[in-house]
Amino acid sequence: MSKIFVDACFGKETPYTPVWMMRQAGRYLPEYMAVREKAGNFLNLCHNPEMACEVTLQPVDILGVDAAILFSDILVIPDEMGMDLSFVKGEGPVFSDPIRTQEDLERLVGGEEAANKLTYVYDTIKLIKERLSEDKALIGFTGAPWTLATYMIEGQGTKTYNICKKMMYSNPELLHAILRKVTDVVKLYMEKQIKSGVDVVQIFDSWASAIEPSKYDEFSWKYMVEIAHYLKAKYPHIPIIMFPKGIASFIERGFVYGDFDVFGVDWGTPMALAKEKLGEKYVLQGNMEPCRLYSKEATTECVEALQEIMGGKRHIFNLGHGILPDVPVENAKHFIDECHRVSKK
Amino acid sequence: MSKIFVDACFGKETPYTPVWMMRQAGRYLPEYMAVREKAGNFLNLCHNPEMACEVTLQPVDILGVDAAILFSDILVIPDEMGMDLSFVKGEGPVFSDPIRTQEDLERLVGGEEAANKLTYVYDTIKLIKERLSEDKALIGFTGAPWTLATYMIEGQGTKTYNICKKMMYSNPELLHAILRKVTDVVKLYMEKQIKSGVDVVQIFDSWASAIEPSKYDEFSWKYMVEIAHYLKAKYPHIPIIMFPKGIASFIERGFVYGDFDVFGVDWGTPMALAKEKLGEKYVLQGNMEPCRLYSKEATTECVEALQEIMGGKRHIFNLGHGILPDVPVENAKHFIDECHRVSKK
Repeated sequence: MSKIFVDACFGKETPYTPVWMMRQAGRYLPEYMAVREKAGNFLNLCHNPEMACEVTLQPVDILGVDAAILFSDILVIPDEMGMDLSFVKGEGPVFSDPIRTQEDLERLVGGEEAANKLTYVYDTIKLIKERLSEDKALIGFTGAPWTLATYMIEGQGTKTYNICKKMMYSNPELLHAILRKVTDVVKLYMEKQIKSGVDVVQIFDSWASAIEPSKYDEFSWKYMVEIAHYLKAKYPHIPIIMFPKGIASFIERGFVYGDFDVFGVDWGTPMALAKEKLGEKYVLQGNMEPCRLYSKEATTECVEALQEIMGGKRHIFNLGHGILPDVPVENAKHFIDECHRVSKK
Repeated sequence: MSKIFVDACFGKETPYTPVWMMRQAGRYLPEYMAVREKAGNFLNLCHNPEMACEVTLQPVDILGVDAAILFSDILVIPDEMGMDLSFVKGEGPVFSDPIRTQEDLERLVGGEEAANKLTYVYDTIKLIKERLSEDKALIGFTGAPWTLATYMIEGQGTKTYNICKKMMYSNPELLHAILRKVTDVVKLYMEKQIKSGVDVVQIFDSWASAIEPSKYDEFSWKYMVEIAHYLKAKYPHIPIIMFPKGIASFIERGFVYGDFDVFGVDWGTPMALAKEKLGEKYVLQGNMEPCRLYSKEATTECVEALQEIMGGKRHIFNLGHGILPDVPVENAKHFIDECHRVSKK
C-alpha cells in the first residue's frame, strides 16, 4: 500500500497535501501526560519501547496526522556514547561531564559500539511498525552533529554557545574531531533505524542559527550532507528531510546543496522565499508559526496562505517549529483538518 | 569640531571607518566591574549619573572606540511607567506585575509624565557630554516598543514568547494598545535624550526575530519607523540607527523602509546580502560575530573580509550583537585597532 506521506516526500502527486507537526507526541496531549506520569520521567519514557510506541501513535489516532514520528530524544546518542544525561526540572538536559578536551573525547564510545547500545530505539520502531496503519508513514530522526555537539560541549542548553564558539574560533580541530565522532555514530544509528522499519528520516539542526553564515557549511551542513549521502547510497527508497532552523539568509545566498528529498522550512523563513530558491530541487515542508495554533482563525489564515503559495505541489504541511504545551488539542486538530480541506483535489 | 562617527552615519567620506561595540561598557572590563561593585547592583548603576557616566567613558579611554554609548538599560522605560523592575540573579530582569489586560495597561503612566521621570538618564547624558572628547560621538538609545512589550507582557525573559504571541493572534487590539502607549513614551524619551546632548540615537529591536515575517511590520517595524520619523522631522542633524536583530530573511523580501540613516546588521546576516539590498539607501553598521573576539586571528580575518565587502564606504564597524563577558580586553582592543588599520586612507 502506498503511503501518501512518502509519495509527497518524493514530489509525486497525492490526493491531498499530507501534514504532521513537530513535537506532535507531546505535552499538549493529556493522553501523553498520562503515559509520561506513568513512566516517572522523560528519559524512562524514551527507554521504554511499549510506552514510547504508545505516545508515538497518539497523534495519529487523535489528530489524524499523515505520519507518526518516533518518540525519542536527540540526546540519547551522547548518552550512549558514555555521557551522563539527566533532565533537571526547569533547566532541561544536563551532562555533568562536558567534552572540552581531546582526552574528554577519547573517553567516549564511538561507531558501532555506541549505535548498538540504542536497542530501545530500534525496539520501539519495530513495535510502532506492527501497530501503525499501513497508509501512514513512520519518521525516524536524529539531531545534526552540530546540535548534539553544542550540548556535549556546553553541558546543557545555552543562550550564547560561548564555550562551543571559543572552540570554533580557537581550536577548530577539536570541534571537528567531536563532530567526526558524532557523525560516525549518527550514520550507523540512522541506518539501524531504517533497518528497524522507519519509512522516512529527518535530521534536525535545531541550533543551526548559532553558527555565522560563513562557517555553517564547515561546522554543520557538510556533516549533515555526509549522513544524507551515506543513507541515500544504501537506501534510495527512504526519503530524507533536512531541517536546519533559523538560516533564512543562507537560503538566499544559495548555501543549500546535497542529495536529499525534503527541506524543512522554519517559520522565520518566508515560504515564498524558500519556494523561489529551493522549490525546484527539494520538496518543502512547513512552515506555520506554531503560536498561530492559539487561534483557529490565525491557523486557517496561514494554512490558506501556504496553500496559495505552494499550490498543493511539492509541499508537506507542518509547523515551522514544535507545538507548544499550552495549545488546546482542538486547535491542533483544526490545523490538521484545515490542511486536508484546503489541499483536497 | 566634526565627529567622524556622525559624518559616517550620514555617509560622508571619513579618514577611516569608525567603530564601536554593542555592550562596550560591560562586564568584560575590570574597570566596569569595579564601578558596578561600588553601585551594589545593576539598577543602582543605571540610576546614578556619576557612575553611569564613568562606565560610559571607560571604553573610549581604554579601547579607543569612536563613539560612546549611554550606559543604561532598555527597561528603565516600563519601570518608570509604573512597573516594578528588578534583576534576579541568574534570571535577568523580572516584572512582578506583567501587563495582560486592558486594566493592567491603564494602570501605567504614559506620555510626558513617564518620560519626565527618567531624569537620571538625562543627567547622565549631560555629565558625559561635559567629559567626552569633542571628536567622539555619544549614542543615545532605546529598546523598540515590541522588545519592551515582550518583557512587560511576559514579566521576564522568555524562550517561546508564548504569552505575547497568544495576545498577537487572539487579541491583537490589546497588543497594539500596549505598543501605542510605549511608542508615545519612547518618542518623548528619545527627544529628551537629544535635548540633553546625544549626537546619535539607536533603536534596538533585540527580539525582532520572535515575530513571523508577515507580521513584523504590523507589530514592530511600523512603530520603530514612527519614532524615527518623529525625531527626523524635528532633529534632522541627529542620525538614527535601526537595529532589528535576526531578520535576514525580511531584508531579502524588501521589508525595510523608512527615513533613517544607518541600518545595524546582525551577525546572522551576510554583510554582502545587506549591502546588496540596503547599502544604497542606508549606511550599514556591523557585523562581526561577537565570539570571534575569542581569537585575534579570527577577528582580523573578519575585519579584513568586512573591509573587502564594504570598501570603506557607507560603513561603520561593529559587532553583530553585544560583546560577551569572558572576552579578554586585549582582544577587544585588537578588534578596534584592526578596524582602524584596515580602513585608514
